[in-house]
Amino acid sequence: MSGHVAVFGNGSWGTAFSMILADVGSDVRIWGRRPEAVAEINERHTNERYLPGVALPEAISATNDPAAALDGARVVVLAVPSQTLRANLADWRPLLDDQQIFVSLMKGIELGTSKRMSEVIQEAGGVDPERVVVVSGPNLAKEIGRREPAASVVASPTTAVAEEVSRLCAARYFRPYTSTDVVGVELGGAVKNVVALAVGMAEGMGLGDNSKASIITRGLAETSRLGLRLGADPVTFSGLAGVGDLIATCMSPLSRNHSFGVRLGRGMTVEEATAETRETAEGVKSCRSILQLARTHGVEMPIVENVDAVVAGERRPDHVADLLMSRARKAEGS
Amino acid sequence: MSGHVAVFGNGSWGTAFSMILADVGSDVRIWGRRPEAVAEINERHTNERYLPGVALPEAISATNDPAAALDGARVVVLAVPSQTLRANLADWRPLLDDQQIFVSLMKGIELGTSKRMSEVIQEAGGVDPERVVVVSGPNLAKEIGRREPAASVVASPTTAVAEEVSRLCAARYFRPYTSTDVVGVELGGAVKNVVALAVGMAEGMGLGDNSKASIITRGLAETSRLGLRLGADPVTFSGLAGVGDLIATCMSPLSRNHSFGVRLGRGMTVEEATAETRETAEGVKSCRSILQLARTHGVEMPIVENVDAVVAGERRPDHVADLLMSRARKAEGS
Repeated sequence: MSGHVAVFGNGSWGTAFSMILADVGSDVRIWGRRPEAVAEINERHTNERYLPGVALPEAISATNDPAAALDGARVVVLAVPSQTLRANLADWRPLLDDQQIFVSLMKGIELGTSKRMSEVIQEAGGVDPERVVVVSGPNLAKEIGRREPAASVVASPTTAVAEEVSRLCAARYFRPYTSTDVVGVELGGAVKNVVALAVGMAEGMGLGDNSKASIITRGLAETSRLGLRLGADPVTFSGLAGVGDLIATCMSPLSRNHSFGVRLGRGMTVEEATAETRETAEGVKSCRSILQLARTHGVEMPIVENVDAVVAGERRPDHVADLLMSRARKAEGS
Repeated sequence: MSGHVAVFGNGSWGTAFSMILADVGSDVRIWGRRPEAVAEINERHTNERYLPGVALPEAISATNDPAAALDGARVVVLAVPSQTLRANLADWRPLLDDQQIFVSLMKGIELGTSKRMSEVIQEAGGVDPERVVVVSGPNLAKEIGRREPAASVVASPTTAVAEEVSRLCAARYFRPYTSTDVVGVELGGAVKNVVALAVGMAEGMGLGDNSKASIITRGLAETSRLGLRLGADPVTFSGLAGVGDLIATCMSPLSRNHSFGVRLGRGMTVEEATAETRETAEGVKSCRSILQLARTHGVEMPIVENVDAVVAGERRPDHVADLLMSRARKAEGS
């Protein structure tokens, strides 16, 4: 495969994934919006805001000109905010060619349309499904920035395309596994942020590991229910992009969604928690669109529903704990 | 249901489960081996060694006479060390009647025979399978001792018997779900201790949450593989007694197996870790019997195999980390 890799987005995961690609041997051009961030990557080879303390490889450069990032790129990695992806792609579409492979690192579901990121890429970028790849797994960016071992799932409808992207990111410390279940991998990545908010809320209310493990288990069950309804492979939810990512996100103090949830559980409003963390967690933005997706398909997702109501200020977080104890059912799985 | 409940074993889970039973309304007689422990429960209503800081209900009494514990008991809860169960039951067998229901709280696999605890109860106690119930889930005893919310799975081949036991333990803070998958529930409870040792080792070696989540995911996969081979229901491993218990045990600092693994990961021998924690973790005792069970049935369990080799002093713990990164396979689930 010739040509460099273009990476759109210089947040923590976009930057850490760029480091992986460069460590394996690609030249990487990061597109970023803010000129200071672009200059910092080019001049100091760091991204202190999102990946503090990491020296980025020389093979990574940055630009705020999308044409310069895309020109000659065979692979385009997308790591922009989920809710701006459609508008970004509309801007960039004239610059895309019909051979490029698009790799989504994004974990959201689009508000209003309830579409997955791969669907938005296809629609807004005019890209065939065969050229869209999604990457998801237990991949806390700060740990990967320290080159600590991690594994991930690289999914595409076409195994050969998934394998091509896998080769680009198979580093000593990063092990990709291929999959053809794009739907399952994307849903796992999106819903886990909402479950992490619920687990954080439980922790913020002083609940212990028994409760948190039960919330994660029920969160996995409702993710699987939605996935099965949408045609995902149930095996995906038992794997790295399902339970693996869910565990890492729900248990790690490095997870933004988890720590945001802890603040909500202690009684802060979304505004107060956002002010304190200086950013809104992805699960806060995507719980409503996931709930809409579930309702459209007639799937019950009580944890997502409760998180949505807490985020909207309509319910207190202690309902999340009640959920575990008060359900009428008796047999597990029923 | 008339009569008291006999609970054999005054460790942390036996004592916490007795508290649940008493809170729901049963009279409970704990059998314990050590006279001082029996006297402490009867006189001070505490069990400071295993459940420090917890005031036990008045409805709990203790004895070191098995006949006194059993006389008139309709339900017998067994919470003795896994490897002594067979010998204990041989002693107590003349005292048992053929109507009693036996509830296993134990999480081991018998060395030598590779039998599950419910099988040992049937064989050594002369009990029909229909009268054996197993309870397992994300149930860290110390949290339950503080009456923090938890859920669990109560499994028996006969739903009516599982429901009978569920009613006895359905407390405000403890929610039982019934199941008929005795094999799956027991395997989940046994293998999770070994996986928790592996996760602890990873932590002790300084690995982060991405690695730990990946080990848990692979541990779940190998537990499921063994379970399917032995006729368990795959749904069990996605539930509270599978992934739920696995997460609680692997992530909690309260888990003995986890903290024992941390010590091994830091380079201690089993002897040194045992001396420091003053007890041997269950996973240390059962990894060999689980491995034998897997080999007998032709199931590969690389995490269990590695933990067994580390425990036996034949391998260094860093092989557990290598496992995650060096496997030849490419497609997840293959």
